[in-house]
Amino acid sequence: MKLNQTLPQLELPWDMIHLGLGQPSGQLLPSEEIGKAAAHSLSVEARSFLAYGDARGNPDFRHTLAQFLTGQYSGRVDPEQLLITNGNSQALDFICTLFTRPGDTVLVEEPSYFLALRIFADHKLNLVSIPVDDEGLRTDILKEKLETLTPAFLYTIPTYHNPASVTLSLKRRQDLVSICAQKNVLVIADEVYHFLNYSDDPPPPMGTWCDRCPLISLGSFSKILAPGLRLGWMHTSEKRVTKMAGSGLLVSGGGFNPFTSEIVNSIVRLGLLTPHIQHLKNIYTKRIETFSSQLKETLPDQAVFQIPKGGYFIWVRFPEGIDTNAFRKAAQKQKVDFYPGVLFSHKKGLKNFMRLSFAFYDEDVLTEGARRLGKVISEHLS
Amino acid sequence: MKLNQTLPQLELPWDMIHLGLGQPSGQLLPSEEIGKAAAHSLSVEARSFLAYGDARGNPDFRHTLAQFLTGQYSGRVDPEQLLITNGNSQALDFICTLFTRPGDTVLVEEPSYFLALRIFADHKLNLVSIPVDDEGLRTDILKEKLETLTPAFLYTIPTYHNPASVTLSLKRRQDLVSICAQKNVLVIADEVYHFLNYSDDPPPPMGTWCDRCPLISLGSFSKILAPGLRLGWMHTSEKRVTKMAGSGLLVSGGGFNPFTSEIVNSIVRLGLLTPHIQHLKNIYTKRIETFSSQLKETLPDQAVFQIPKGGYFIWVRFPEGIDTNAFRKAAQKQKVDFYPGVLFSHKKGLKNFMRLSFAFYDEDVLTEGARRLGKVISEHLS
Repeated sequence: MKLNQTLPQLELPWDMIHLGLGQPSGQLLPSEEIGKAAAHSLSVEARSFLAYGDARGNPDFRHTLAQFLTGQYSGRVDPEQLLITNGNSQALDFICTLFTRPGDTVLVEEPSYFLALRIFADHKLNLVSIPVDDEGLRTDILKEKLETLTPAFLYTIPTYHNPASVTLSLKRRQDLVSICAQKNVLVIADEVYHFLNYSDDPPPPMGTWCDRCPLISLGSFSKILAPGLRLGWMHTSEKRVTKMAGSGLLVSGGGFNPFTSEIVNSIVRLGLLTPHIQHLKNIYTKRIETFSSQLKETLPDQAVFQIPKGGYFIWVRFPEGIDTNAFRKAAQKQKVDFYPGVLFSHKKGLKNFMRLSFAFYDEDVLTEGARRLGKVISEHLS
Repeated sequence: MKLNQTLPQLELPWDMIHLGLGQPSGQLLPSEEIGKAAAHSLSVEARSFLAYGDARGNPDFRHTLAQFLTGQYSGRVDPEQLLITNGNSQALDFICTLFTRPGDTVLVEEPSYFLALRIFADHKLNLVSIPVDDEGLRTDILKEKLETLTPAFLYTIPTYHNPASVTLSLKRRQDLVSICAQKNVLVIADEVYHFLNYSDDPPPPMGTWCDRCPLISLGSFSKILAPGLRLGWMHTSEKRVTKMAGSGLLVSGGGFNPFTSEIVNSIVRLGLLTPHIQHLKNIYTKRIETFSSQLKETLPDQAVFQIPKGGYFIWVRFPEGIDTNAFRKAAQKQKVDFYPGVLFSHKKGLKNFMRLSFAFYDEDVLTEGARRLGKVISEHLS
């Protein structure tokens, strides 16, 4: 059983099974494909991707990416609607710099991606949350809040939510667009899990509506190729792309990642991306089956969760009054870990939840992890 | 004569010689070396550079870089004093996010790098300038200003200044450190041209004093390898590295550029960096000789400049009352361009200066450019 083979970001004991980790395992990182693509990119005479590039990203790559997205989505994506980024964390940071000032209000979901909350804190933003339910963001509550609030933007994770694993329904997407168009509220849609669907097709990505309301959709290669590439994109109106490309940072740096863009351009052009995504989906589908059936077996009945239809996460709910942090230390002693729900709340709520993920470990490790976790929780709750 | 072969960042007419451009020509971008290094990096089994990485940058790469810098500098650089960045523009943006709020005062040099001024503007900072003379930043005036001002930081380009081409003397470096230590003012030293010395050795880089006063030295591979890599580093105290590594952006993204870091790690390990820097120095030394002697011949006597000892730039001074912008249109008509001095002033001064560079064009193009420019200026001033 191989455990923590690749984990530069965190320092974990070798025998710890950290079921909270939301990153792909080392074996799923396509180094062979990246090697082929790098050789392809660097074999050509043109070296423009080594120079200061177009502030919006390499034109050729934006063209390739637009074609790829058009093929994946139901609607057409235009290269002029794309701006290449260093991934969604950097894109969020950049958006905060351009569109907020300290003290501004930003709307987030409850729960939300915990590290996005940290980025907003670094920009000294004031967070107000809107709950999510099984259909995603509660757009009715959003509408109410916007009666009195004028936020700098709304941050939402519409598809295969991190951590709640829910997906915003088509009806709610349309509501969201119409509400935010009317109130002129900028929507930042983090769509990093959109391509990782296992048992259904998600509604169209929010980027589809980028000309219908103020909206920036964030996409990334972190989950469909490799996080270390630090490469992603914004999909928004051409006008907003032009505006952002005029920022000091982009004019000075000349595009966020021209070199890596060219390598990923080759990956897509060589036809290596689509099969890799399918490979990931096959692996994750099997992992979900194994992991969730093992969890059903080992977790006590008070622990409730939905089987994820996409993305990375299982969001486990315990009865009110139970604090998952209370048994985290005991879990760590038994060499299993998770992320407690409170991490995903900007107001220290959600204590009776935990986030689990099946992205980092093989099926046998997930099985063992579910056993360890079940044992600890059963002991704690009995 | 090859003119604008590689210019994604700017759209120039093919026959324009833009003597203002501060970027290396396409032929100087080491694609062969990068190809070898990529093959080397991607041939190894360990794939940790494709995963979310250490927030400070790949440990192995920081070790390699520390060794390289220790070899180049007179003093020892510790890996724990290094934080890997996406280049100096991104580093400046990151520093503004972490250490400033809108309305804060930042001290800059007059002149200063014009795109840094744009980044500061995006962060809504209030700029106050300190003049530079032939020995660099006027530390006596800095001292006076600090009697009444409490800036968020001071931004300086100590070595082979952009655009003024001057270098801060050792005495002034020591003064700067002692003044800023006493007043607890953070120094941001942009040392991107430090390795490009042609006719003398510069004083030790400001990073040398990073434990003696609040200081972050910014280094970059943009000028010594390729701008498109978007890779650089901060050299500062271990304590400040740790603090910055705890930012939301870095914890979420896991290091700014793990993939490219590994490729540059291979470039250094394979012994390809040092000879490439020497190659650049040989080329630029010859270009300076040719270009400056041609300029001496073709520019009227009112135009005064020093022959650069390093870096990228020639900073030409005209008599007070002459506005270089006044003949820019005429120059463009004659298919030659430059950057007027006013670009490098945050208060619309320096109108009687212009920035020229020898980084982008071969000697024959520089010669022709100097001829065209001389003709336009002579006509204008006669």
